[in-house]
Amino acid sequence: MTDKSDGRFAYDGIDRVIHEKARLSIVASLAAHPDGLLFTDLKDLCALTDGTLSRHLAVLHESGVVKVEKSFQGNRPQTWCKLTAAGRKRFAEYVSELERVVADAARRARAAPNPEHLGLA
Amino acid sequence: MTDKSDGRFAYDGIDRVIHEKARLSIVASLAAHPDGLLFTDLKDLCALTDGTLSRHLAVLHESGVVKVEKSFQGNRPQTWCKLTAAGRKRFAEYVSELERVVADAARRARAAPNPEHLGLA
Repeated sequence: MTDKSDGRFAYDGIDRVIHEKARLSIVASLAAHPDGLLFTDLKDLCALTDGTLSRHLAVLHESGVVKVEKSFQGNRPQTWCKLTAAGRKRFAEYVSELERVVADAARRARAAPNPEHLGLA
Repeated sequence: MTDKSDGRFAYDGIDRVIHEKARLSIVASLAAHPDGLLFTDLKDLCALTDGTLSRHLAVLHESGVVKVEKSFQGNRPQTWCKLTAAGRKRFAEYVSELERVVADAARRARAAPNPEHLGLA
């Protein structure tokens, strides 16, 4: 394990646009619903307020991760949200980097126990 | 899959103190080195500047995740960083939540392809 190499734990593949907690929640919800979600359903799945969801959707939209379409259902306006193809790809790359974080943590947990873990230090 | 339940993708177990990209890098480095790391080695592993590392170490220290000890090696001052027992526990819980994110993404990837994935929509 080349643990001491420069940047070994920099995790450069962590995309800050997606990594922010509320945005990760939004993107993961949309990734699980390829046909898209209504604003109101997305809000519930992510447990976000209208204002917070709007703010983060704007960031994701500006970054080309999410597309937002407004339409009418009868007289009621509806906002429909969906990952773009680029957004789907960025999320897949992001998840690959999370898998590295998880694998690094698991490797440590499997390593020989040190005295502190046993409460001896 | 009870996909539509409220908060299903809220990922409440994501601890913002650890989740921030630079701090995740710091905590993962320290988790992989249970005996602790010198400030200078930690800086290299995380590919951070002195200022950025100091700033984030202060947040982690205030939150009880990291302990920082200053000592002298001959005449040279040294700063030694180590996860606290509480920090190790918080990181393990955080990683469990990351595993949920990864599993959710993998579940979607395994699901039946929809027409858009095949470029038909």
